[in-house]
Amino acid sequence: MSDNRSGVPVLDPWGESSVVDYGRLFEEFGIEPIERFADKFPATHRLLRRGVWFGCRDLGRVLDAARSGSIYAVMSGIKPTGVYHLGTKTTAEAMVFFQGLSKAARVFYSIADVEAYCDNGLKFSESHEIAVGNVADILALGLDPERAYVYKQSEEMRVMNLASVFSRSVTNNMMRAIYGDRAFGLYFSALVQAGDILLPQLGFFGGPKPVIVPVGVDQDPHIRLTRDLARRYRDEFGFIEPSSIYHKLVHSLTGSEKMSKRDPMGVLTLNEDPKLVRRKISNALTGGRATVEEQRRLGGEPDKCVVYEYYRDHFLEDDERLLRIRSECLGGQRLCGECKAELADLVVDYIEKHNEKKASMMDLARNLLEEGSRIAKQGGSIL
Amino acid sequence: MSDNRSGVPVLDPWGESSVVDYGRLFEEFGIEPIERFADKFPATHRLLRRGVWFGCRDLGRVLDAARSGSIYAVMSGIKPTGVYHLGTKTTAEAMVFFQGLSKAARVFYSIADVEAYCDNGLKFSESHEIAVGNVADILALGLDPERAYVYKQSEEMRVMNLASVFSRSVTNNMMRAIYGDRAFGLYFSALVQAGDILLPQLGFFGGPKPVIVPVGVDQDPHIRLTRDLARRYRDEFGFIEPSSIYHKLVHSLTGSEKMSKRDPMGVLTLNEDPKLVRRKISNALTGGRATVEEQRRLGGEPDKCVVYEYYRDHFLEDDERLLRIRSECLGGQRLCGECKAELADLVVDYIEKHNEKKASMMDLARNLLEEGSRIAKQGGSIL
Repeated sequence: MSDNRSGVPVLDPWGESSVVDYGRLFEEFGIEPIERFADKFPATHRLLRRGVWFGCRDLGRVLDAARSGSIYAVMSGIKPTGVYHLGTKTTAEAMVFFQGLSKAARVFYSIADVEAYCDNGLKFSESHEIAVGNVADILALGLDPERAYVYKQSEEMRVMNLASVFSRSVTNNMMRAIYGDRAFGLYFSALVQAGDILLPQLGFFGGPKPVIVPVGVDQDPHIRLTRDLARRYRDEFGFIEPSSIYHKLVHSLTGSEKMSKRDPMGVLTLNEDPKLVRRKISNALTGGRATVEEQRRLGGEPDKCVVYEYYRDHFLEDDERLLRIRSECLGGQRLCGECKAELADLVVDYIEKHNEKKASMMDLARNLLEEGSRIAKQGGSIL
Repeated sequence: MSDNRSGVPVLDPWGESSVVDYGRLFEEFGIEPIERFADKFPATHRLLRRGVWFGCRDLGRVLDAARSGSIYAVMSGIKPTGVYHLGTKTTAEAMVFFQGLSKAARVFYSIADVEAYCDNGLKFSESHEIAVGNVADILALGLDPERAYVYKQSEEMRVMNLASVFSRSVTNNMMRAIYGDRAFGLYFSALVQAGDILLPQLGFFGGPKPVIVPVGVDQDPHIRLTRDLARRYRDEFGFIEPSSIYHKLVHSLTGSEKMSKRDPMGVLTLNEDPKLVRRKISNALTGGRATVEEQRRLGGEPDKCVVYEYYRDHFLEDDERLLRIRSECLGGQRLCGECKAELADLVVDYIEKHNEKKASMMDLARNLLEEGSRIAKQGGSIL
């Protein structure tokens, strides 16, 4: 979180790491605490129970649709530059969850291959192969392919046409107020993302409907821009303001605020080699004390511990076992070394099972992308 | 021509009218006088002989290709919001001329239907019908459809992907230096036009080649931006800086600098009703004197006369007859009333013949657009 020139605090969707003051998000940006909606969820989820989802916008609209069986869409995207890590996995799990709440939900998954080219120099053919793996990942996590449109940014002309339309009503001042003083290209890509988020509401896809966008909270500026555009173009397109649900950023193993592929020892991917998993986790930042004696006496600090975060947010579904770990840590019975080894076992096991499932999904992933290409290329009409 | 905030003179590609100081264009913008290349043209044309084409950039590269039989492209575009007028006709004639110079020339014609929606509220289905007429117009003017790719902006994803790539290297300052302080949407559309201009050099279309862009001189800012981008992305795409040839802006019948559809009594379209042609021309601004007596004594001023401009630049191929008209005017033998009536006859005759040809081209135009859609939808790969 940083201040832009006019002193307005901004979240930085393009930043690598930043210290997010979650309390300020509610007061200053109007993000709603998730607790308000906790009893409206038709099902529960680890990410909800453990507080990884902490904020949202207009979530009631989507939960109502889920409970009444009326149509809604689940939208998010990924830049296909590498395998899933815990951050992209968290978004994917949210998509699968919201798709699973109702048979009337349809997923829209944008593969940002144009971004992957611009930012990382990956040719479309290269990022396509990576995307096949990413799609197999989300299929392994439970995505129902029958109700999913997976498209590549380089092919979905409707998104670009929406971005062109939107470009006429934004001003540099407006973009600066949301994003701070950024490069022209980032403003351009923000409009493309607004196009992605509003795509499910075009006539081609059945017209206006509630849309839930599960993202890391650093992406909220895109949500605010898009909601603003939805209001501006309501008369023209009938848009309903998209809803969002935010997950806390996943800390890297080295303790920085946002897991990123650019920090190799901090990132944990879903195809990590078991040996490397153990090495990375054994080097992870913990909430342990300086000495064993001190740890026995004072107990650990799980709320400052990345290892505990990974149990809680990612690798342990069993609530009771989690509480046991927590109390053992606080009580000084659990030392960091054994705790790390136990997590590493869980992670290695998770990755092994995940990759078995993923391997069986590769053909389906390829087909889903092909089907997406076919739909994307049907035309550019947005009206 | 106006001054932007930093005092740099700018041409305004989006303006309706402006007084262009053609001399300054050579000195300050580096546009080359066309005379330098006059003896390199393998064929002549009314627009060249009469000085309507007055400036260019890197024209030698294209004329060399035309004479040697090596491949080059001819690129321009139109916003499909109405029928051809004399301005769009002038661009189309240039495209037909440059295509005709060599069997190795291929035309790229961009139908800016996204712009037509953003600026004029025309739905794609509406602008499509207008585009059919526009394409029939250029076919009637002699375009060879076998060597022409006519595509709609709303469908040619490669153009948008190029624009996305280019967006990463332009800055607000750079755009301001070229265009002045303009709305975000105009900067956005400028990048799309750069994508249009560089499209013919993509691998899909056979890779780097000379490209000639015939446009009104007010479009030069787009050419400068695109040449800059071609240099920046030379290593990545192999781009050759596009060449351009500029025609003077067509005065409206009421005397304003740039003919525009927005000035109904000033515009002369190619499907004007004969009665309206006669009425508009009889009201046109001339270089005539205050009284008949004065006109007889001093002669007229053809170089200040829109009626003479239309003979010279648009409706009279016969050089001798043009010179006769000029000397009769200068000598006071020719009065404005008869001169206007004579022009009106020529125009009515031209329009009648043109529309006969155009009517026979409508099916072909429709097919050419369909074929363009097919090619546009083949993919978004720019690499």
